[in-house]
Amino acid sequence: MNTSKNFSTLLIVLCLIVSSCSRAQERGGLILTKEGIERIQTNLGTIPLFDDSLRSVQEEVDAEIARGIDTPIPRDLSGGYTHERHKQNWFMLQKAGVLFQILQDEKYANYIRDMFFQYEAMYQGLPLHPQTRSYARGKIFWQCLNDANWLVYASQAYDAIYDWLSEEDRNTLENNLFRPFADHISIESPQFFNRIHNHSTWGAAAVGMIGLVMEDEELIQRALYGIEDDGLESGVTDDDGGFIRVAGQEAGFFANLNEPFSPDGYYTEGPYYQRYAMYPFLVFAQALHNARPDLGVLEYKNGVLLNAVDVLLNLTDANGDFFPLNDGQKGMSYHANELVTAVGIAYHQGDQDPRLLSIAQDQGRVLLDDTGFAIAAGIRDGLAQNFDKDSVNYSDGAEGNEGGLALLRYGDEELTLLFKYTAQGLSHGHYDKLSFSLYGQGDEILQDYGMSRFVNIGQKGGGNYLPENASWAKQTIAHNTVVQNEASHFGGVYEVGSQYHSDFRFFDASDENLQVVSASESNAYPGTVMQRTMAVIKDEEFENPYLLDLFRTTSETDNQYDLPFYYHGQILQANFDFETSDALEALGGGNGYQHLYLEAEGIVAAKNAKFSWMDNRKFYTLTTVADEEDKILLARIGANDPEFNLRKDPVIIVRRPEARNTLFASVLESHGSYNPVTELALNSNSNIAELSVLRDDANYTAVSIESLRGDTRLFIVSNQDVRTSTTHRLEIQGQEYSWSGPFHYASL
Amino acid sequence: MNTSKNFSTLLIVLCLIVSSCSRAQERGGLILTKEGIERIQTNLGTIPLFDDSLRSVQEEVDAEIARGIDTPIPRDLSGGYTHERHKQNWFMLQKAGVLFQILQDEKYANYIRDMFFQYEAMYQGLPLHPQTRSYARGKIFWQCLNDANWLVYASQAYDAIYDWLSEEDRNTLENNLFRPFADHISIESPQFFNRIHNHSTWGAAAVGMIGLVMEDEELIQRALYGIEDDGLESGVTDDDGGFIRVAGQEAGFFANLNEPFSPDGYYTEGPYYQRYAMYPFLVFAQALHNARPDLGVLEYKNGVLLNAVDVLLNLTDANGDFFPLNDGQKGMSYHANELVTAVGIAYHQGDQDPRLLSIAQDQGRVLLDDTGFAIAAGIRDGLAQNFDKDSVNYSDGAEGNEGGLALLRYGDEELTLLFKYTAQGLSHGHYDKLSFSLYGQGDEILQDYGMSRFVNIGQKGGGNYLPENASWAKQTIAHNTVVQNEASHFGGVYEVGSQYHSDFRFFDASDENLQVVSASESNAYPGTVMQRTMAVIKDEEFENPYLLDLFRTTSETDNQYDLPFYYHGQILQANFDFETSDALEALGGGNGYQHLYLEAEGIVAAKNAKFSWMDNRKFYTLTTVADEEDKILLARIGANDPEFNLRKDPVIIVRRPEARNTLFASVLESHGSYNPVTELALNSNSNIAELSVLRDDANYTAVSIESLRGDTRLFIVSNQDVRTSTTHRLEIQGQEYSWSGPFHYASL
Repeated sequence: MNTSKNFSTLLIVLCLIVSSCSRAQERGGLILTKEGIERIQTNLGTIPLFDDSLRSVQEEVDAEIARGIDTPIPRDLSGGYTHERHKQNWFMLQKAGVLFQILQDEKYANYIRDMFFQYEAMYQGLPLHPQTRSYARGKIFWQCLNDANWLVYASQAYDAIYDWLSEEDRNTLENNLFRPFADHISIESPQFFNRIHNHSTWGAAAVGMIGLVMEDEELIQRALYGIEDDGLESGVTDDDGGFIRVAGQEAGFFANLNEPFSPDGYYTEGPYYQRYAMYPFLVFAQALHNARPDLGVLEYKNGVLLNAVDVLLNLTDANGDFFPLNDGQKGMSYHANELVTAVGIAYHQGDQDPRLLSIAQDQGRVLLDDTGFAIAAGIRDGLAQNFDKDSVNYSDGAEGNEGGLALLRYGDEELTLLFKYTAQGLSHGHYDKLSFSLYGQGDEILQDYGMSRFVNIGQKGGGNYLPENASWAKQTIAHNTVVQNEASHFGGVYEVGSQYHSDFRFFDASDENLQVVSASESNAYPGTVMQRTMAVIKDEEFENPYLLDLFRTTSETDNQYDLPFYYHGQILQANFDFETSDALEALGGGNGYQHLYLEAEGIVAAKNAKFSWMDNRKFYTLTTVADEEDKILLARIGANDPEFNLRKDPVIIVRRPEARNTLFASVLESHGSYNPVTELALNSNSNIAELSVLRDDANYTAVSIESLRGDTRLFIVSNQDVRTSTTHRLEIQGQEYSWSGPFHYASL
Repeated sequence: MNTSKNFSTLLIVLCLIVSSCSRAQERGGLILTKEGIERIQTNLGTIPLFDDSLRSVQEEVDAEIARGIDTPIPRDLSGGYTHERHKQNWFMLQKAGVLFQILQDEKYANYIRDMFFQYEAMYQGLPLHPQTRSYARGKIFWQCLNDANWLVYASQAYDAIYDWLSEEDRNTLENNLFRPFADHISIESPQFFNRIHNHSTWGAAAVGMIGLVMEDEELIQRALYGIEDDGLESGVTDDDGGFIRVAGQEAGFFANLNEPFSPDGYYTEGPYYQRYAMYPFLVFAQALHNARPDLGVLEYKNGVLLNAVDVLLNLTDANGDFFPLNDGQKGMSYHANELVTAVGIAYHQGDQDPRLLSIAQDQGRVLLDDTGFAIAAGIRDGLAQNFDKDSVNYSDGAEGNEGGLALLRYGDEELTLLFKYTAQGLSHGHYDKLSFSLYGQGDEILQDYGMSRFVNIGQKGGGNYLPENASWAKQTIAHNTVVQNEASHFGGVYEVGSQYHSDFRFFDASDENLQVVSASESNAYPGTVMQRTMAVIKDEEFENPYLLDLFRTTSETDNQYDLPFYYHGQILQANFDFETSDALEALGGGNGYQHLYLEAEGIVAAKNAKFSWMDNRKFYTLTTVADEEDKILLARIGANDPEFNLRKDPVIIVRRPEARNTLFASVLESHGSYNPVTELALNSNSNIAELSVLRDDANYTAVSIESLRGDTRLFIVSNQDVRTSTTHRLEIQGQEYSWSGPFHYASL
C-alpha cells in the first residue's frame, strides 16, 4: 500500500466512524431513501410510467410468490435449471424488497426472509459448485461472478427488510450466510476479486453493499480498496486468457474506476461489457452516495461514472443496439435492465439531462426507487427531449492516451462509421487495430463479426465462449482491417497486444458533410507502420454520403497485405473476372484463415476494382484502386467449423501479394433502393467513374474521386503534421492547393 | 369456332349494336363514370383517404409535368433508362387522366395530348425494339407484354380527354398510334396475344380497352375472343418454355378467364402472376361492366374474378406478402398497385365486404375513381373489419379437379402451412409435387426458394430469369418434397408435367387444434405413388402447435429417396454424429443437385434423428424417424453458381439410399425464444421423447408422439378410404381404436 492510499484510507476510516455513529441512530436506506419512499407513497397513482412499472413488478413477484420458493442444490452451468432458478431468485429478492418498502405489505418481507433462510440452511457446508470450468468457482453458481451477482441484489433485499427482521434473525443470516458468502467471493477467491476486470467490479459491489447494510467496515474497506495481500502471482491468466494480476496494479472498486475507464468515460472492454459492469458500478455508487456522501463517488475522476452512461448510449446504433466491439453479443441494447438503472441514476444524480427521458420512454419502464421516480415524473411533465447521437471521438486508457474510438455519424444515423484504434481491451479484446464497421440506420453495411458465443444457450458449449471465439472471432482477418502475411496483430498473443495501443492522429467532425478521423499503429507488426484515414463525405454529386478509406502501410520488408470488407447480401456485379472453385477449400491454415472458404478469385484488369451488392433492399458499391498484382478474393466464413458455430457470412478481400509501402484507397457508396412491391430499382449503379491515387509518400496522400458526370474531387491528407494550425501548400496536376490543418477536400 | 361460341358472339354483336347506339348519344366513361365524377367532386375534402390519395397523385403528376415530357427512342431492356421512362409515362398518362376528370384542370389534358402526339410522331415507322430477347418483341419496349401494359393505361388517359380533344386530333391519334399499336400486339404478334397466359390477358385488356374508347367493334371482338386464324403451330414454346398454342384451346379474354382460374378462384400460375394478371383482368372487366353490362363479366363463372381477389388476399403471409409459389419473387405483397385496384373493384362491385376496408387501410391509398371513392367513404364511416385469414383448400384447374393448394393456419398466423398439390402451373410452374412451406407470423420457418430472378435489376441478366431459375429454382430438390433417384418430377420436362396434376385426398380444418390435409401424386415418377399427409396440431403437451408430416412412397422398384427441409438460421444441436468435409463439393451432377454443397454427412444411431436450430430468436427442432441406412446430409445452396445468382441458404436432407415402399415420418416443433437483451433462452429444447411408426401399410399409417413428460399421442391416417362417413376399427399395441373419417388423433 502506498502512502497516498494509506492517507485516503485513514481519512475514510475517520469519516466512517462519524457517519457510522449517526447511522446507528437512523438507517438511511441502501438504495431507496426514507424521503424517497415517502415521496413515492404520496404520489402513487399520479405518474403513469412509475405506476405501470410498479404494477408490472408486483404482478411478476406475486406470480413467483404463488409458485413458491425453490432454492435447488447447485448443479448446472448457465442455461441449466439450477442456474436459471437461482438467477431468477436474486431478481425476485430485490424486487420483493422494493415492493415491501413502497407498499409495506408484509407478504413481501416474509417471502424474502423465507428465501434467505432457505439459502442460509443450504449455504452452511455447501461445497464448491460441482462444475469445474471456471477459474474461480462459486458455490451457488459455477462461477464466483454469478455468486457476486446474487449478493448485489440480495443485499438490497436484506436492506429492505433489515429493520423489520428481529435482531436474532439478522445475526443468523449475517453469520451463516452473508458474511461467509462475501468472504468466499473475496478473500477465498482473490483471483476473482482482486483484479481490474468487470468480474471484480461485481465482486466489489457485492461485498461493499452487503457491508453497508451490515455496517461492516472490514467488508466496506475490502470492497473499496481490494485485498492487500492476495498472494497472487503476476502474469497468471483466467479462462478467457485475461491477466489476473499485473505487477503494481491496485484492486477494489476505486481501482476498477481508475483503470478501465478513460477520462472520456469509455470502458476499455467495450460497450457490451461496459453495460454489464455499469450495474454494479452504479448501484454500489448510488449506495455509497447515500451512505457515504463524503466519498464523492459520483464526482470521482470528473464524474466519470455518469459520463460513462452518456458514452454507453452513444455507442449504440439507430436501434439502440450496442456496437459489438471486442467480445460483444449482437442484439444487446440500451433496453437492457442495466441501462434502465444507468439512465435513472444518471438522470437523478446528474444534471437531469432531458435527453435521457426519451431513452427511458423507449425503455418503457423505470426502477422503483428515487431515480425511477424522478424519470417518470420528468416524462409525465413533458420534459423529454430526443437523444440525438453525435459524431464523437473517445479516448481509451486510464489517462486517455491509449488510442481511442471514433464515431462519424451523418444525418439521423443515415450513415454511421465506427473506427477502432483502441488499446487491447483486456481479456475480451480482439486483434483488430484500425478496424471499422459501417451502419446505415441501424443495419450493418460492413459488419464486425462480434463474438462466437451464444450466451445462455446451453446447446452451444453451455452458453460459454466457443473455441471459434479464439480461433476466429478474435483474429485479425475476422475484421475490416489489414492483415500482413496472414498473421494476426501481435501474433495474436494477448501478453504482447496488452502492452500497446494505436495512436490518435486527428479527428474533425465540425462539418457534417466532411468528417474525418485518422490513427496509426506501429506495433501490431514489428517493422511495419499502418495508418488509416477514414472520411464520411456528403457531396452534392452523390445521392448519399460515402465512405473514403485510405489505409497506408510502410514497412521495412516486403509483405502480403489483405484488406477484407465483410458485407452482407447478394452480389450484383463486379468489373473484374473471377473464377469460382469447383470444390471449396479453406483460404489458409491458421490465424482465422482456416475458417474462410475461398469461393472465387479474381484479377483486376482496370485501374479500379468495382464490386456491387444488394442488401436489405439497398445497393452498395465498393470501388478500390487496384495494383496490377492485386487479387480479389471472395470468401465465406464457415470452414473448419465442425459444430457449425459460425455464421456463414461473406467477405471480399483485396489481396496485395508483395508490397512494402503501399496504399489501399477505397470508396464505399450506398446508393438507391429496390422495392419488391413496385419492383423498381432506383439508382442501382455506382456514381464513381474513377478513383485515383495522385500522390502517396511520407508527406501526403492525395486521391481524386471522379463522378460519372465528370466532376472530380480531391482529398489530401497530411502524413506528418496533423496540427490544425499548420498551413500546407501542394501542387497536384500542375495546380497549387493550399489549406490549413491535416486534410483538404476540394474540386480538382 | 364452335357453335356455342358462334351463338354467343352473335348475341354480343346484337347487344353491342344496341348499346353502341345509346352510347353515341352519351359517353359513359371507361372507368370513371359520369355519376362517379360528380359524386367525387361534390365530396372533395370530406373523405380523408380519398383526399390524401388525390393530393399524392397530384403532387406526383405536377412534378412530372414540371420535369417535362420525354419519349426517348426505345433502346433498353427493363432496368434501363428508355424502358423505365416509358413505363413511368404510362402511369403518368393514366394519373393525369383521372386528375383532369376530377379537377377539370386543362393542364392535365394538355400534358396527355402533348405526350400522345410525341408518341404518335415516333410510332409511325418505328421498327421492332432493338433488343431481340423476347419471343414477341414490342416497339416501345423489348417485349409486347410491356407495350400492352402501356396501352392499358394509355386507353384510360385517352378516354379521359376524348371529349376534350378535337375530332381531328382523335382521328390522327387513332389512325397513327392507337390502331397500329393495338394491331402490333395482336394480329402482328399472335404468339403473344392468342394464348392462355397472363401475357395474353394484358394483350386482351389493351386491345379491348382502346377498342371501347374508340368504339371499335373489331378490336373489342378480338379482345374478347382472340384471333380466329392465328397460324400458330401447336407445341411451340416461348422464352420461358411455356406452350404458345395447345391444340383445341381458345383465346382472348374469356378463354383466359375460363382456363387458368379454378372455380374457387385460384389462378394456376400462382399468386405472384395472379397479382400481375389481376390488373388487366379487373380493369378491363370494370370497363366492360360500365360499357357492356349485358356481358356480365363480373358474374361470369360464378363471379370468379371477384372471388379471385379474396383468394389472392388469402395467399399472403402475416405481413401481406404473397407466398412465393412457382416463379414468384419474394416480397411482393398486397401493397402492390394491382391489389389496390383489385380490392377497390372487389369492394365496390362485390357485396361491400367490410374486411376489404382493413386491407385498403393498410394499403394506405385508393384509386381515384368510383371504387376508390366507395372504399374511402367506407373507411371514413368506420365500417372496416379485420381480414382474418382462414385455413382453406383451393382447387386447381378450370374444372377444379386438377389437385389444389391447402393452407392450414393456426391462431393469428402463429403457424401457417402451405401445402401444394396443384397442376403444373403453366410455364411458371415448378417441379414440386406435394411440397410445402411453413411460416410463423410472417417469418419463413421452412422456405420455398421462390424464383432465381431479380426483377428489373439490370445487373442481374437484365432483370430477367436467370439460368439458375431452370437449373435450380424449378428443380424438385429445391423444394421441401421427396426426390427419387436424384431426378426431378416428370424428368423436369414441361411437356410431361403439364399433362398431370396431383390428387386431392382430404382436407379438414374444422378443429383449429387438429387440421389435416392429404394428397397423392402418381405420375411424377412412373411406377411410384407418393402420398403426403400433413397435420397442424395444437396439443396441451406442447407450447406451440407442431407440424406432423407423413410422406409415403410405394414403388415397383428400389429407389433412393431424398427429403429436404430448407430451414433458416443457426444449427444448435443434432443427436447424430456428422462429419464435416475439408473441401466442399457439389452434392450431385444435375437436376439441381449440382447447386448444393455438401457440408456434412451424418449417420443416425438412434431411432429418431433430431436436429435443432435457432432463427430470428426462436428455436425449432425437426424430429424424424430414421431407418438404419438413413443418412442425414447438411448442405448449402451455391455450388456451380459462377455469377453468384443464388442465395447461400442451408438445407437438411434425409436420405434413404435404397427403399421401395417407405415412410418419412417427421415432426417440426417451434419452441421457446431467445432474447439477446435479457439473454434468456426459454424452452430451447424439443419436447419430443420419441416419434415412432406403429403401422404403415396399404390400409393405414399410424405414428405415436411421446412427449418428454411421457404422455403419448397416436395419429392414424387411412391410406385407402377417405370418406368422412366411414367408420374404422384398428388394433394398435393391443388396444382397439375406432373412429369415423380419414384420420384419428388420440392418447395412446
